[in-house]
Amino acid sequence: MSFEINATHGPSLRSWVATANVPGCDFPIQNLPFGRFRPAGSKEAFRIGVAIGDRVLDLEAAHVLEHSDMNLVMSASPAERAALRAVLSEDLREGSPKQKHWQLALYAQADVEMGVPCTIGDYTDFYTGIHHATTVGKLFRPDQPLMPNYKWVPIGYHGRASSIGVSGQRFKRPMGQTKAADAEAPTFGPSKRLDYELELGFFIGQGNALGEPIGIVEAEQHLFGVTLLNDWSARDLQAWEYQPLGPFLSKNFATTLSPWLVTMEALAPFRAKAFERPAGDPAPLPYLDSDVNRHTGALDITLEVWLQTAKMRAAGEPATRLTRGNTTQAAYWTPAQLVAHHTVNGCNLQPGDLLGSGTLSGPEPDQAGSLLELTLGGKNPITLPNGERRTFLENGDTLTIRGHCERKGAVRIGLGEVSGTVVG
Amino acid sequence: MSFEINATHGPSLRSWVATANVPGCDFPIQNLPFGRFRPAGSKEAFRIGVAIGDRVLDLEAAHVLEHSDMNLVMSASPAERAALRAVLSEDLREGSPKQKHWQLALYAQADVEMGVPCTIGDYTDFYTGIHHATTVGKLFRPDQPLMPNYKWVPIGYHGRASSIGVSGQRFKRPMGQTKAADAEAPTFGPSKRLDYELELGFFIGQGNALGEPIGIVEAEQHLFGVTLLNDWSARDLQAWEYQPLGPFLSKNFATTLSPWLVTMEALAPFRAKAFERPAGDPAPLPYLDSDVNRHTGALDITLEVWLQTAKMRAAGEPATRLTRGNTTQAAYWTPAQLVAHHTVNGCNLQPGDLLGSGTLSGPEPDQAGSLLELTLGGKNPITLPNGERRTFLENGDTLTIRGHCERKGAVRIGLGEVSGTVVG
Repeated sequence: MSFEINATHGPSLRSWVATANVPGCDFPIQNLPFGRFRPAGSKEAFRIGVAIGDRVLDLEAAHVLEHSDMNLVMSASPAERAALRAVLSEDLREGSPKQKHWQLALYAQADVEMGVPCTIGDYTDFYTGIHHATTVGKLFRPDQPLMPNYKWVPIGYHGRASSIGVSGQRFKRPMGQTKAADAEAPTFGPSKRLDYELELGFFIGQGNALGEPIGIVEAEQHLFGVTLLNDWSARDLQAWEYQPLGPFLSKNFATTLSPWLVTMEALAPFRAKAFERPAGDPAPLPYLDSDVNRHTGALDITLEVWLQTAKMRAAGEPATRLTRGNTTQAAYWTPAQLVAHHTVNGCNLQPGDLLGSGTLSGPEPDQAGSLLELTLGGKNPITLPNGERRTFLENGDTLTIRGHCERKGAVRIGLGEVSGTVVG
Repeated sequence: MSFEINATHGPSLRSWVATANVPGCDFPIQNLPFGRFRPAGSKEAFRIGVAIGDRVLDLEAAHVLEHSDMNLVMSASPAERAALRAVLSEDLREGSPKQKHWQLALYAQADVEMGVPCTIGDYTDFYTGIHHATTVGKLFRPDQPLMPNYKWVPIGYHGRASSIGVSGQRFKRPMGQTKAADAEAPTFGPSKRLDYELELGFFIGQGNALGEPIGIVEAEQHLFGVTLLNDWSARDLQAWEYQPLGPFLSKNFATTLSPWLVTMEALAPFRAKAFERPAGDPAPLPYLDSDVNRHTGALDITLEVWLQTAKMRAAGEPATRLTRGNTTQAAYWTPAQLVAHHTVNGCNLQPGDLLGSGTLSGPEPDQAGSLLELTLGGKNPITLPNGERRTFLENGDTLTIRGHCERKGAVRIGLGEVSGTVVG
């Protein structure tokens, strides 16, 4: 089954938290994303909160939960999840008798520090962005941009969980080995081709036992929600290290997530057809195919990338937009196909595991989700409004990804944003 | 600094646990490896134990520890670790006044179930076995078996932590996509080229903060200990999926560890010179090089692989040995080099993280650490003593890796064994 659009999505629903009703707000009552927060500046353990307008509802203080273990929430059955969402929706509505009590459990988002939304056991990054794979492939293999397996296998690899941080992450430019094409030997130093990658992060809810694959029809029920994900990449380290076992130090120095887990329930009105395979492309093998997946397997999310350099910040200039695109038709594989593929060999997923979508570049050049694509491998620098030029990221650059869903007849749902800054 | 050989290694040391003094025993008082156990058949939480002879000492019952968190033990400073080892060595010695009390905290190993030795946050698998890399590379690229980066970069990739199990693991033969070289399209079904890989697992003790690399000189101090590791591999899945991002479903269906963490302190008498690079090989870059590493960076461990088929088991026939080799000169990179490389970009390691060595094949054909090598890619089947033949593993096969250290003047130290069985 797919997620039903129900009473928690009604466009006329309004919350007694007034800021949730402001048009264009990321967190209306139709959203209700989960995150982990603590009062800014404190060293307390992170607690589970739900974003509503510009506030956070503390679920333990509101007596909705009796614990602060986000992974336990994520391990709930679909029915339990739906029940929790119904309670939150009902009691945050205008006129709810809970208002008096729950008001005491609200924090201003401006006054809290957010953590990574849950404990991430394993992180897998996929490569579903076919326009990204094609453009990048062309740089290396003009005659064969896509590998022969690309349209059969949802290509993925294991990433590093320990270095995943939350929006606001600052990280040092990675050091490492690089080798120029015409050099005899590699040299050691800071990466000179530091890049971002525009991705979505899909979080697993209920897991599966080792040896028990999750079928494509059930796969949706194992997805808990979505965040924005920046898969920082050192292209020069990657080019030298990645054969034959894949990216390693070029990726694992940092990965940054937005703090709010937007649930699959909240995204129900924004489902879309799976990638429309052009004539000549193979059909997915049966374990990756279902009617529901074909009709509503994809997500319709608008994504933007913004850059603010140190110079812009010093001059009080706002960030400039590098990219605006939409996930529809950017991803060759749906989240459900990733779950079915990941487990078809018996591999076990656990609550809180993270699946990255891969870079979600649109079909047009200005919809590219990385500087590698926008600058054609660093050959065509882009010029920013203040006259600065970029091929790759420089120290002090702050990169921000924003995402939201909009559709006629539905209330706009925001994914918030993920920001990160590279320091020297 | 490297680990000093001290009073806890003396060959004349004897324990009041009589079986620890039997020559050839894996767990004499000079070893003292850590593991997690519970009474067989119980569903209790795992507790921390130390193997001594054929017994396990329950460290909480013996009042050595006040908790059962192995990762907390692993996060201790080198001085704290040395102090814990000194206490165990002192109080398990013949004549110790603790004998009377500690005898009550002993379990027979035969009566306990062992768990994975700690909580593994992230698992990285390296590719240090140069003879393995060369033999396997020849199968794919006869003219260039080793990639140009091999002698510069300790090649590694992220593995899957959730599917790591402990000796005794039984797992289903993985399903997946495979494509014959001459086929137009892939097919879906059970792997037909299921293999093992003979590896060591190096466990991280104290970690490092994100952005703070561990230098080669300090790297040894961040290693806690060693287990045996079987990196099960589905060669046919691997060949089709691994380009361009590396192995994924071909590896993550199961990885099996021996239950006893043999500490770096216990292995101090068995350190060896790092790989002797032949003339023409580049010197390691400075961040991978130190005097101590060159002189004592490697480990001198004898490894064996044994196979028992279902038919042998039914006939009461013992396992047959497939391989016997030694880690000296099998690994191109030392454990300290792996730690220094892994963190040089700022990546953070945490207590309990696991680094696999990669397949440790010796230079001779019969020292190969996988069936892929022993059978030359499945072309030359091996014949077992009962007449059965194998190219790759069949259902019901039990594969066992054993390891131990022996040197003149030192007491033999065992790593125990790791066994695993593939089921249909």
